[in-house]
Amino acid sequence: MLSSSSDFVYLTLEPFYTLLKSSKSLPPALMTKYHEALEKGCLPFFVNNRQVGLIRPDFWVHFKNYPDVFQLVEKPQGSKKPGVHLSEDYKDYKERTAVVSKVLEELRAKDAIGSLRGWRDENYSVKPNFAEQPLLEVERSASGLFGLLEYGVHINGFTRSAKGELKMWIGRRSKTKQTFPDMLDNMCAGGLPAGMGVLECARKECQEEANVSDQLLDRLKPVGCISYFYEDERGLQPESQFIFDLELPEDFTPVNTDGEMGSFQLLTMSEIQTEIVSGNFKPNCAAVCLDFLIRHSFIDFDTDPNLMYFVEQMHAPLQSMYR
Amino acid sequence: MLSSSSDFVYLTLEPFYTLLKSSKSLPPALMTKYHEALEKGCLPFFVNNRQVGLIRPDFWVHFKNYPDVFQLVEKPQGSKKPGVHLSEDYKDYKERTAVVSKVLEELRAKDAIGSLRGWRDENYSVKPNFAEQPLLEVERSASGLFGLLEYGVHINGFTRSAKGELKMWIGRRSKTKQTFPDMLDNMCAGGLPAGMGVLECARKECQEEANVSDQLLDRLKPVGCISYFYEDERGLQPESQFIFDLELPEDFTPVNTDGEMGSFQLLTMSEIQTEIVSGNFKPNCAAVCLDFLIRHSFIDFDTDPNLMYFVEQMHAPLQSMYR
Repeated sequence: MLSSSSDFVYLTLEPFYTLLKSSKSLPPALMTKYHEALEKGCLPFFVNNRQVGLIRPDFWVHFKNYPDVFQLVEKPQGSKKPGVHLSEDYKDYKERTAVVSKVLEELRAKDAIGSLRGWRDENYSVKPNFAEQPLLEVERSASGLFGLLEYGVHINGFTRSAKGELKMWIGRRSKTKQTFPDMLDNMCAGGLPAGMGVLECARKECQEEANVSDQLLDRLKPVGCISYFYEDERGLQPESQFIFDLELPEDFTPVNTDGEMGSFQLLTMSEIQTEIVSGNFKPNCAAVCLDFLIRHSFIDFDTDPNLMYFVEQMHAPLQSMYR
Repeated sequence: MLSSSSDFVYLTLEPFYTLLKSSKSLPPALMTKYHEALEKGCLPFFVNNRQVGLIRPDFWVHFKNYPDVFQLVEKPQGSKKPGVHLSEDYKDYKERTAVVSKVLEELRAKDAIGSLRGWRDENYSVKPNFAEQPLLEVERSASGLFGLLEYGVHINGFTRSAKGELKMWIGRRSKTKQTFPDMLDNMCAGGLPAGMGVLECARKECQEEANVSDQLLDRLKPVGCISYFYEDERGLQPESQFIFDLELPEDFTPVNTDGEMGSFQLLTMSEIQTEIVSGNFKPNCAAVCLDFLIRHSFIDFDTDPNLMYFVEQMHAPLQSMYR
């Protein structure tokens, strides 16, 4: 069993803070820890007999009080694998969504779990991997309770001077943000709500968080993705971010329209490296910036031999974790 | 114990052939298979008490005949972990290199192991991860026998028309190449020899394989890396490739000067996608092309939801595998 949440960190985003420093005390790889997690009593979570998550013992103590909804299978039963199964009495997307929502609302009303104080009234899709059809949708603040795969978009808004110098618009998160207040962020970013397309979500975030015009939004370019698995007080967070580059005219200035970003500044690539190493970025935004710096050839492998380690860690194999 | 090599594939590069197709029958993730490999009798290989490889049982039957060089530790002995340890009688880089070379020369003379028929007279550095100092160097054709981490460079040579259309120079490997004869390849690629820098190696390959001038070589841009682990008749191959983009003038034509590439053709991005899906590329070159297509926004996540899976699989966590 799990003794404390602190011995349960899979992949902290710490390494991005030590970038350009030594290779000492790098954290171990994700998948080894996934095995350890199972040994420590985390329970695979199944919907329609497909694994979609991992429930930590300290959250299971709450869910096990709803045995009509969450059923513990201790040993393989026919095709059913050991773990927690959402009851098959709830047969489709709508019924599953409704019953899980009911349980979460009850736990929230009792103030049983801290994460639910951050209730967002926004749902995430639940599926074994990104390519498949969703099996249900779950309130965003609860996804860590089930270790669900989460998705989001991050947009690198950058300018290129006549001489070719790149600068990037970096946001500072509002001091009142629930998570990582007052830390540096990409120009725009946000979670992918249930039912929304990836590009559609990127456009929405650019409009809400930086007031980018429709004309400029047509320049949004998908350029890759990152995946990582971390843990915090909200639970287990296996997360992937779709990354977009957006080249902006030099006279553009982002204006936040939803109150999530406190201010913006236009930084050189060298300033961004300094901010990453100083730990001033929200960790996953540091990873997105690092990916930008790599793709745009601002860091090389001869002068920073740890880079390959970071690139691998930024692409944890989450899409195959629950297969 | 291992029944046959065919049940021992970690990550085939097969998924790149099924790109843009369904999510069916995707291979499992690397690290799970690493655990299975240990269960099946593969032995961690240590030098100076640091793991640098993994020895398959069918290769160990040869190495165990040299007990003064390769020592099997069955249970933890003090700080020594179970596995095969290169004898500490060989104290430094030079002594270790010499003794392993002597064993390999003997096995080659006896024709004991098929891989050694591909003797290259080129050494690879042996280290627990890319950032550390090498502990010895080993003949290239033997690296699969020890499951050593291997590194190489791949160069995307591309042109951009006045209208902005990208095309990429694709090589067809010589029909007499030891490995993957007559398959499609990147413009230039090659293994990283012991003691050579990454950029230095990329320049050398561009000169030898495509006759790129010094002036054009100054445009070489490091843009990332990929990592994967596969197995073939040569053994266990955990491999990482440093990727470079090289924008070329439209009147440039690559000319092979070392006989490794049979011919070159300039393909559109759409033609390259077709060749990837048709399985005409050497698998890791398909991955390098896929990485190029993603970074340059020719594929997106809405129309190809499997893409995230492929991106993760192209970045297997090899740098932390032997830590």
